[in-house]
Amino acid sequence: MNRIILSAALCLCAVAATAQVKEDFVPSPNNQPGKQYPMVNSERCVRVQVKAPDAKSVKLDIGGVKYDLVKDAEGVWTGESAPQDEGFHYYQLNIDGADVPDPSSLYYYGASRWGSGIDVPAADQDFYALKNVPQGQMREIYYWSEVNQAMRHCFVYTPADYDVNKDKRYPVLYLQHGGGENEYGWPQQGRTAQIMDNLIADGKAVPFIIVMENGSWTMPRPAGGAPAMQRPQGQRPPQGGQRPQGGRPQGGFGMPSNWADGFANTLIKDCIPYIDSHFRTIADKEHRAMAGLSMGGMQTKAITVAHPEVFSNLGIFSGGTITVDDTKNNPEFAKGLKLVFVSFGSRELENRVAGFGDGTDPRQETEALAASGVNAHFYVSPGTAHEWQSWRRALYQFAQLLFK
Amino acid sequence: MNRIILSAALCLCAVAATAQVKEDFVPSPNNQPGKQYPMVNSERCVRVQVKAPDAKSVKLDIGGVKYDLVKDAEGVWTGESAPQDEGFHYYQLNIDGADVPDPSSLYYYGASRWGSGIDVPAADQDFYALKNVPQGQMREIYYWSEVNQAMRHCFVYTPADYDVNKDKRYPVLYLQHGGGENEYGWPQQGRTAQIMDNLIADGKAVPFIIVMENGSWTMPRPAGGAPAMQRPQGQRPPQGGQRPQGGRPQGGFGMPSNWADGFANTLIKDCIPYIDSHFRTIADKEHRAMAGLSMGGMQTKAITVAHPEVFSNLGIFSGGTITVDDTKNNPEFAKGLKLVFVSFGSRELENRVAGFGDGTDPRQETEALAASGVNAHFYVSPGTAHEWQSWRRALYQFAQLLFK
Repeated sequence: MNRIILSAALCLCAVAATAQVKEDFVPSPNNQPGKQYPMVNSERCVRVQVKAPDAKSVKLDIGGVKYDLVKDAEGVWTGESAPQDEGFHYYQLNIDGADVPDPSSLYYYGASRWGSGIDVPAADQDFYALKNVPQGQMREIYYWSEVNQAMRHCFVYTPADYDVNKDKRYPVLYLQHGGGENEYGWPQQGRTAQIMDNLIADGKAVPFIIVMENGSWTMPRPAGGAPAMQRPQGQRPPQGGQRPQGGRPQGGFGMPSNWADGFANTLIKDCIPYIDSHFRTIADKEHRAMAGLSMGGMQTKAITVAHPEVFSNLGIFSGGTITVDDTKNNPEFAKGLKLVFVSFGSRELENRVAGFGDGTDPRQETEALAASGVNAHFYVSPGTAHEWQSWRRALYQFAQLLFK
Repeated sequence: MNRIILSAALCLCAVAATAQVKEDFVPSPNNQPGKQYPMVNSERCVRVQVKAPDAKSVKLDIGGVKYDLVKDAEGVWTGESAPQDEGFHYYQLNIDGADVPDPSSLYYYGASRWGSGIDVPAADQDFYALKNVPQGQMREIYYWSEVNQAMRHCFVYTPADYDVNKDKRYPVLYLQHGGGENEYGWPQQGRTAQIMDNLIADGKAVPFIIVMENGSWTMPRPAGGAPAMQRPQGQRPPQGGQRPQGGRPQGGFGMPSNWADGFANTLIKDCIPYIDSHFRTIADKEHRAMAGLSMGGMQTKAITVAHPEVFSNLGIFSGGTITVDDTKNNPEFAKGLKLVFVSFGSRELENRVAGFGDGTDPRQETEALAASGVNAHFYVSPGTAHEWQSWRRALYQFAQLLFK
């Protein structure tokens, strides 16, 4: 039923795209240097352009819909999408049947690939804008994992005063991406450093460290994979069937079979000890949080419920809820809980997409949890779906509640 | 004359590619996760594969040569290049006339675009391998530039013991990319952190900080450019004519007109003061170095000669030399010099490409400089041209001489 409604909506958008579009397109803020395309207009339509003089067909593939481009006399193809939601979207081009990145965009990892992304201006974009405020640092680190028998890669955000107050210790948030994404998601499309720097400069959040690891890469690498020593930054060995395949899942998460247990081992046995020994953390559960989006939210619930000795604070963005039953069934977990934050995009909440088609209402569940005495908060991102604008806003809200 | 020889060599390679290739291809170490292609064989031929069922023509464009791919019954195109040099190479695909990134590779910034890159295994790759040794950090930072009236973006490598010895202060190397590249070059394709971590772990280099800025972005951003607040990480405002256009220059550098003066202002007035006030540096000229590749080497010479009060150590990788005349004409510069390092790839040295077709011999010039009493060193990277393997090796050699 929900699928029928969704399909009908997509058809309407596709029809809309062929109608007159408003000619106030401006270059996207995340084009490659010097590139005029892709562009976005005030109706949030995305227009792309690519030179393909010998091609028979070129399409723009965004939001699950393919839009035909039109060729001019010089062999340059141009065309636009229907209006998109505010915020970040993955997309690609299709040239004579080949799915390829747009050579004019910057690239992001999502839908299980490095590919094109575009940021559609949003009314509230100021909260994730790069501003001249005291700047934290996004640190890229590698560390040895006994669980994986390999060097692992993650990002660590340190707030601006971390290098000023050389003896101060900080709480830590472990912040996870979704299915088909990786540890680059929060630093890049999530705009974590900008959100945090702005919040801290405004006095709305206390300074804390944020660690962003790869929740999809949780097993020892297979024998015969490329030796670790040859791998450049950001690259991972072949994953076999462990890594989510295909695009962003529709009505499922495409998660690796070990999505929670495997990552829990990595996180608790290797990652947290490394962070606590190499950064000035406050290394107790009251000053440690885990949060994540979609698959990362489900990992957050599984790991924090199973390890109340490690975490007292958690955030689930578009990835489920904590219910009163969860606390009743896990008394140790319930006893230590300091903060529960649950969020959804308004349109995914309405449509119960993303696996929540069971009729339960996350808002009611969270309100019931709060009524039972837990410090629980529910947030809905207005006008957004299962997408990064929902999660940027979720981090913005969650960070203001955390470690206070 | 040199161009004729070069063209002849390229023709031979193209012919070689159509002959029998050795079928021992393995996935490249910098494929996207889970991708089998691109591959490299023991003859250092690169084989790519892309699905493009409706395309009439698909080519692999690498090393200045385009190789035709062949289509199978399922619409999958496959083909390979002639043997490539060891080390890193930019490449792209051409699908029915469209130049696009290979959807299976990781992406790097070079030839004035974010696009595909491939690392061809090298006999000496151990020196830039990721190993389980004490790990430094590659920190991504933004800072306000008065010169540019904008937030600027750079990377700062801190050695492993930076966060251990909280009161220790460190020398600093300012390390620049080439024309058509940006501040991501040294952290990514340059493998700076791995080279330094390994050297320091082996006791072959003293620990120092490395700052990697964008030497091509040197002017105030134009009015009407995207506001800084909307720009995501790594993105730059439209550059007009300031940014090198086109691919890696052949016999020229495609440098912006203000390649030295403009960047000198940014570096000396804004970047160095920010680094000295936010990192534990030894903030004097004896403990400050500048080095760069190609255009970055030419910037290094121009800036260090003009600012002997700032730098006492310099490295020029494939970007010119320091001559005895340079020291005679600039006595202040000569007086403070602690270290001069000059390097080239053997094949670019032989061919006098990269603008050195004037008959001078950089080795003789550097030896003459050393004979005049300067601590000057000359290094030749064996079997490589004007490419990243030459510069990884140059950094590896230079770092062992620096700040000792």
